[in-house]
Amino acid sequence: MRNIKLTIEYDGTNYAGWQAQGKKHRTIQETLEKALQIILGKRTKIAGSGRTDAGVHAIGQVANFKTDSALAVEKLQKALNAVLPDDISVTKAQEARPDFHSRFSAKSKVYRYTILNRQSRPTLLKDTVYFVPYPLNLKLMQKEARVLLGRHNFKSFQAAADKKDSVRRIKNIKVSRDKDLIYIDIEADGFLYNMVRNIVGTLIEIGRGKLAEGSIKKILMAGNRRVAGPTAPAKGLCLMEVKH
Amino acid sequence: MRNIKLTIEYDGTNYAGWQAQGKKHRTIQETLEKALQIILGKRTKIAGSGRTDAGVHAIGQVANFKTDSALAVEKLQKALNAVLPDDISVTKAQEARPDFHSRFSAKSKVYRYTILNRQSRPTLLKDTVYFVPYPLNLKLMQKEARVLLGRHNFKSFQAAADKKDSVRRIKNIKVSRDKDLIYIDIEADGFLYNMVRNIVGTLIEIGRGKLAEGSIKKILMAGNRRVAGPTAPAKGLCLMEVKH
Repeated sequence: MRNIKLTIEYDGTNYAGWQAQGKKHRTIQETLEKALQIILGKRTKIAGSGRTDAGVHAIGQVANFKTDSALAVEKLQKALNAVLPDDISVTKAQEARPDFHSRFSAKSKVYRYTILNRQSRPTLLKDTVYFVPYPLNLKLMQKEARVLLGRHNFKSFQAAADKKDSVRRIKNIKVSRDKDLIYIDIEADGFLYNMVRNIVGTLIEIGRGKLAEGSIKKILMAGNRRVAGPTAPAKGLCLMEVKH
Repeated sequence: MRNIKLTIEYDGTNYAGWQAQGKKHRTIQETLEKALQIILGKRTKIAGSGRTDAGVHAIGQVANFKTDSALAVEKLQKALNAVLPDDISVTKAQEARPDFHSRFSAKSKVYRYTILNRQSRPTLLKDTVYFVPYPLNLKLMQKEARVLLGRHNFKSFQAAADKKDSVRRIKNIKVSRDKDLIYIDIEADGFLYNMVRNIVGTLIEIGRGKLAEGSIKKILMAGNRRVAGPTAPAKGLCLMEVKH
């Protein structure tokens, strides 16, 4: 069996996420599997590097599937992009080693969260940014973000319902501004459920003065979701890259 | 009467342009005028710096209107953004001198055209870029673009139906690449109908080798729309700034 690795870009606005808990709304995964079924002629399971939530976008989601089809990867990519809806695009299709698994072989993931920080509502970017109209202290956000670097127990930043081991390593975190846009880029060896959105929600509270300098350290030590800031909306989040 | 200057951002995807020829579809101008009527309590004519076509976007369109309302500009801006649909946003509202006119006082306009140049379809950017899957020779596009700098008769680049004086001055033109995106930025003292889109369509033909080096000079001299390249699609075009 061949093992095929796909790199996938999507606008998550109209999806219930990569994979849904319930089965009410369509998901990215099942949309890809339906496209594969049309092209390969049989039901083919696809494994993603991880779930992205409803409304979350991706530029570099990675997935893989096994097939005995002889179709060349270039043709497979073209066929998929011809069949898929216009908010999902396969940007790369490659042969992978038999033991490659998009999730278990992943070394780290890179997420970007985008904030539009100005007085007036977004238009062109309305589905891809979180609109924050009040002033934000970028320097303080940058300083506090650096406290998150390294290996920590991120229990305070994981969705309250989640109960897994909550130690992760943040390899890089950067808060930067380009005109009206603030980018929060985070690379980690893994992410807990809602971890990026909870970190961003907390950094925004710090930036607007609702949480004081030193808060990140206290929140990390508390190990309690309730002491951190709110969960920032899904639409500002984008999975940029999965490193293997 | 006060004279109010507005800076406006819009996603032109669902509009028949700034101002329509016919009256079948809604326009940006009439949507703004309806919002003004709700806020000011009477019909108020608004003058734009120029028409943008159906599907063309703006980050810095400028318009002005006269009013005897005493409403402060900050409140006016907020009220407009509360009433306007989510694909139009007023990013600035200012008092202007009585003789200010968004169109007649304009010194130059800056347009950006964005091309997505890669193998796979766009998703997140599908309404704001022109997708070109074949390789483009950027260096040659840059070299040929520079020939357009300065004062020329742009008859070859104006819509065939248009018959006005076709001499314009291009103050700046820049072709640049950032990963998969190619930007064509053009500043001129004025633009003929479809001028940017015809220039872009021609530069793409040059970039893909369908038109040879030296073509721009020949096309300018010919003064004939039929010798230039095709009109690039509206969705890649954005009015960035109007300078007064």
